Amino acid sequence: MHILVLGAAGMVGRKFLERVARDGHLGGREITRATLHDVVMPTAPAGAGFPCEASASDFAEAGVSEALIRDRPDLIVHLAAIVSGEAEADFDKGYRINLDGTRLLFDAIRLAGGGYRPRVIFTSSIAVFGAPFHEKITDEFHTTPLTSYGTQKAIGELLLADYTRRGFFEGIGIRLPTICVRPGKPNKAASGFFSNIIREPLAGQEAVLPVSEDVMHWHASPRSAVGFLVHAATMDPAAIGPRRNLTMPGLACTVGEQIAALERIAGPKVTARIRREPDAGIQAIVAGWPRNFDPSRALALGFKSEASFDEIIKAHIADELGGAYAA
Amino acid sequence: MHILVLGAAGMVGRKFLERVARDGHLGGREITRATLHDVVMPTAPAGAGFPCEASASDFAEAGVSEALIRDRPDLIVHLAAIVSGEAEADFDKGYRINLDGTRLLFDAIRLAGGGYRPRVIFTSSIAVFGAPFHEKITDEFHTTPLTSYGTQKAIGELLLADYTRRGFFEGIGIRLPTICVRPGKPNKAASGFFSNIIREPLAGQEAVLPVSEDVMHWHASPRSAVGFLVHAATMDPAAIGPRRNLTMPGLACTVGEQIAALERIAGPKVTARIRREPDAGIQAIVAGWPRNFDPSRALALGFKSEASFDEIIKAHIADELGGAYAA
Repeated sequence: MHILVLGAAGMVGRKFLERVARDGHLGGREITRATLHDVVMPTAPAGAGFPCEASASDFAEAGVSEALIRDRPDLIVHLAAIVSGEAEADFDKGYRINLDGTRLLFDAIRLAGGGYRPRVIFTSSIAVFGAPFHEKITDEFHTTPLTSYGTQKAIGELLLADYTRRGFFEGIGIRLPTICVRPGKPNKAASGFFSNIIREPLAGQEAVLPVSEDVMHWHASPRSAVGFLVHAATMDPAAIGPRRNLTMPGLACTVGEQIAALERIAGPKVTARIRREPDAGIQAIVAGWPRNFDPSRALALGFKSEASFDEIIKAHIADELGGAYAA
Repeated sequence: MHILVLGAAGMVGRKFLERVARDGHLGGREITRATLHDVVMPTAPAGAGFPCEASASDFAEAGVSEALIRDRPDLIVHLAAIVSGEAEADFDKGYRINLDGTRLLFDAIRLAGGGYRPRVIFTSSIAVFGAPFHEKITDEFHTTPLTSYGTQKAIGELLLADYTRRGFFEGIGIRLPTICVRPGKPNKAASGFFSNIIREPLAGQEAVLPVSEDVMHWHASPRSAVGFLVHAATMDPAAIGPRRNLTMPGLACTVGEQIAALERIAGPKVTARIRREPDAGIQAIVAGWPRNFDPSRALALGFKSEASFDEIIKAHIADELGGAYAA
């Protein structure tokens, strides 16, 4: 099985490739080759028992997708995207990469000929939804995004479903929850604090909490995100039917519940490193975000995520900190 | 007020222009100029008290939209589209006109500069919805189209909302019901029979009914369709909020109710001209179509349609037949 990962240098892409390299197979099919692509040069996963080729270029340039699919990868994992903040700041760039790039990829597959019909996993986002919401967002709630990024993802979903219906590929769109705990350094994303208030205190560092503790949000661990991709790559796609885009399961919890879980696991000295510093700007942005979902379809199709925030923290300590933290 | 109508040679475009020519104003603003465009040369409405320029070209060619908006029309009514059957038969043509053409128009406006911010009315369709449905489709039901045409319209809606949110224009998307009674000759559209079984018997001709009488569908008259455009052109857009795409009101009725209304109005000799000829192919297509809606938002915003199928037939007799029919 030959896999192509677009956006392979990103956090989820790297972790997916590490998992695949560790397992050596996907759904019982041996991985024989991996093609990695990103706008910066991606790194091949350590210890892979299969050849990996990596390349870096602009995915929305003419010909790039054609070249990437020349050897007919069986599975294409499309994670490449301009993120929310940048797509809002740079209108043209967001549409060029997130919409045109995605369409160029889909059209390259469509026009490849010779009966080529790979499985295509497209990572969408809960940003396709825009407030006001119901208490829980169901699988039939409309997509009325309030960002250009969410608009571009919603358009990608529509294209994915139509190209699948027309038989050009076997598409599965997965709407990722906010990934928490995100490894690495604190960044300026408005959603960064959800991870910062766990990761930084566990590393002995102070973290800023800009919202009140009753803010609720929708989380899944990086480990779950990889699990979603693996399941989408290996499940029976016939079970999905024509509605190809699925809200992934996640955990709805408040910031207060996040902090309580951290205190249960790591103690009050760790949670004391969280500094409350209300930020009206971030509070206003967060108020427009989805809080909770009823992802019945994805659950029925076998997608799994954490059942408690304790599990999310334990996954972070195990996967990122080697089991230890700064008490 | 300078208006631009794209798709001006189509049935709805022509009727909108006739109405505007008759009224001479829109929402109290005098019409001073009309620009008409279509792929075939549109005809200026008779008796217009304002200059009309008409042109014919391919709307998805580079530069066409730029030229059409060069004189900064205040109102743009975008009706141009490849219809459902053709968009399904010719994948490239459907995406080129319905998606690329729409985006080129929107980008031409975005990049026009000088604070240009016209009102843009985009005609979408109930084809953005795909079965299975609830008893009534609400304003929050998701768009999971089962045709390429529906996909292209749903993408147009997303672009319209995002471009409006970003301040590039004042967009209003209106999802038209099936227009009934459609004037003209019977055509091969799968939905044609909804109009044929009224129009042809009233003209003394036989009509074929390919489905059973319990088939329910969602209708509005051509007069109502024009009314939707006029209301969208003149209403206070601030009342709409960020969800710019609205399911228009209509009338849900069964084929049996259509025929009963025709018999009430024109008598049994007219309805005897309907020949039952079940067609499994058409029945299968129609089974996937929306039947009924709860268009609360559009109603609250003042959009109006017929309350009974009798009214729809009477509008046809008045507007198309000069008040007379073949008894």
